[in-house]
Amino acid sequence: MVVKVHGPAFASATRRVLLCLIEKEIEYEMLPLDMLNGAHKTPEFLKLQPFGVVPVIQDGDYTLYESRAIIRYYAEKYKSQGTELLGRTIEQRGVVEQWLEVEGQNYHQPIYDIIVQLKFHPKMGKPVDMKLVEESEEKLGKVLDIYEERLSESKYLAGDFFSLADLSHIPFTHYLVNDVGKEYMIRDRKNVSAWWDDITSRPAWKKVLQL
Amino acid sequence: MVVKVHGPAFASATRRVLLCLIEKEIEYEMLPLDMLNGAHKTPEFLKLQPFGVVPVIQDGDYTLYESRAIIRYYAEKYKSQGTELLGRTIEQRGVVEQWLEVEGQNYHQPIYDIIVQLKFHPKMGKPVDMKLVEESEEKLGKVLDIYEERLSESKYLAGDFFSLADLSHIPFTHYLVNDVGKEYMIRDRKNVSAWWDDITSRPAWKKVLQL
Repeated sequence: MVVKVHGPAFASATRRVLLCLIEKEIEYEMLPLDMLNGAHKTPEFLKLQPFGVVPVIQDGDYTLYESRAIIRYYAEKYKSQGTELLGRTIEQRGVVEQWLEVEGQNYHQPIYDIIVQLKFHPKMGKPVDMKLVEESEEKLGKVLDIYEERLSESKYLAGDFFSLADLSHIPFTHYLVNDVGKEYMIRDRKNVSAWWDDITSRPAWKKVLQL
Repeated sequence: MVVKVHGPAFASATRRVLLCLIEKEIEYEMLPLDMLNGAHKTPEFLKLQPFGVVPVIQDGDYTLYESRAIIRYYAEKYKSQGTELLGRTIEQRGVVEQWLEVEGQNYHQPIYDIIVQLKFHPKMGKPVDMKLVEESEEKLGKVLDIYEERLSESKYLAGDFFSLADLSHIPFTHYLVNDVGKEYMIRDRKNVSAWWDDITSRPAWKKVLQL
């Protein structure tokens, strides 16, 4: 069954899902959504995703949303196909879940605020809240200091294996590094910088960027 | 092996873990942490949990933090013991993960801000940011409207079975209902109200409240 992915391919949460599907060698089809014209707020789309956000997947008659739920589902469903993304043992999966939660709870909000303010607000003609950018940069810097320490002990966040925890960071951090002049936040931290080069050199990520 | 749980038993994220351990009939021991005196910021504690927050568990030589990672770990490790909390199939688990992510990403931030402002700031002699409370109440109300609709289709969030997705909502919502005068947010929504009565009548939650 070809997995249908609703969402523009440049949206970071959609990229999180595409990256997982490619790592797991799962066939998919993009169903582009014209969010600029409000396609995510139509009654039809809200029946699939009541919060009106992307991505959503449809796999036969199975529908799922929330990018981090979708990547967990496919990493488990196709455990022995493509890249192993949950670790090999229940204990390893626990640590993958820990860092995936750190990403969702500690890393995501400040990086999201920075990207929205500096990349999207100017495009939409909205004012940029520089106070929010500064506060978010301070919060994100503290999280990255802990990552720097963690990555002195292991090559990847959950241990010596690439996992959903690393993967989940890539789409938003790509914009931080390439689009809003904040690459130094990664480069000023030696271990974070080496980790970033490693996880973004994977063929799956290069494919996502070409979509 | 008795699971050691670091954290004050009244902290909502710690309660999320305790509730799961009791539902799964897992033996545990509380290691109370005097957070008012900064015990969560000592070098010793930061070695266990570098972000300086609770809870953390130690299970033999296995250490894990982030409450939602811990509950996933125990729900999976003791799958056939106590209450089944992840659903019976991979597809059901996917839907559990979806609503657990909705809780973490959409429900948590506004309810956290309301509780911190209205319950904890007055106790700590800090000013209450009523604008933040109002904005958070509006956000939370929109999320609860979607829950109301969802709970017209199924008894619990992930389907007709109680799961981690429901469990994860209980500790913060308990404070919303009982401590900050916002019970109407639950009671004004018929299906949410019935769901709330159901999930909080479980013996495991009553035990947590007695700790």
